[in-house]
Amino acid sequence: MSNTKVLPLLDAEAPEAAAPCCPPLTERPFTAEEAETAARMFKALGDPVRLRLFSAVASHEGGEACVCDISDVGVSQPTVSHHLKKLKEAGLLTSERRGTWVYYRVEPSVLAAMGKLLTIAPAPA
Amino acid sequence: MSNTKVLPLLDAEAPEAAAPCCPPLTERPFTAEEAETAARMFKALGDPVRLRLFSAVASHEGGEACVCDISDVGVSQPTVSHHLKKLKEAGLLTSERRGTWVYYRVEPSVLAAMGKLLTIAPAPA
Repeated sequence: MSNTKVLPLLDAEAPEAAAPCCPPLTERPFTAEEAETAARMFKALGDPVRLRLFSAVASHEGGEACVCDISDVGVSQPTVSHHLKKLKEAGLLTSERRGTWVYYRVEPSVLAAMGKLLTIAPAPA
Repeated sequence: MSNTKVLPLLDAEAPEAAAPCCPPLTERPFTAEEAETAARMFKALGDPVRLRLFSAVASHEGGEACVCDISDVGVSQPTVSHHLKKLKEAGLLTSERRGTWVYYRVEPSVLAAMGKLLTIAPAPA
């Protein structure tokens, strides 16, 4: 059983379609609402330890990892758990318990949606 | 005269080549140093007002804007200036004074380098 939540950067009606919340940053000024949503994701990656944990999960075999796989970032286990919770709250990770361990997974669609924010909009014709 | 600074996400020897500091987040776990550098950029975009200002500059004609063009985000002029300074310190904007006004510019290479962090690494052969 997965406890996947709706990811805030994606269209809640069709998260698998990876419809981003926001246009590329270069296309037009963000509205206040778009900025709130996107800033939450960027802020979650704006901490070095969190970013290392996120990268450890994202690059792990199969795109998922349990806490036992990714504790090698020089902080305590409770700190690791705290940061993983923050990444989940921001919609960047989902988690699933299997037996003893909780497995964390990065949704490729979330990375794709964030990447799209940072693409250069084509020049107007 | 431009006061363009070396952008921390880029190779200091060849910033125009947009060599990113870090591999895609999905390629391998970030080192502590890579995470420090990349987290600084993400953190700078992790505030809704800053993100709106950044988007306003990035989407403005010619990829640059003066403060007079982008003050429409519902905060005071000193607050706008404060956030623009933070974006400059993170290497996301450069600035240039021309006459009365300071013009801010997003380096496309910085956006490209950040976007590259968020690409999905190809599966190993």
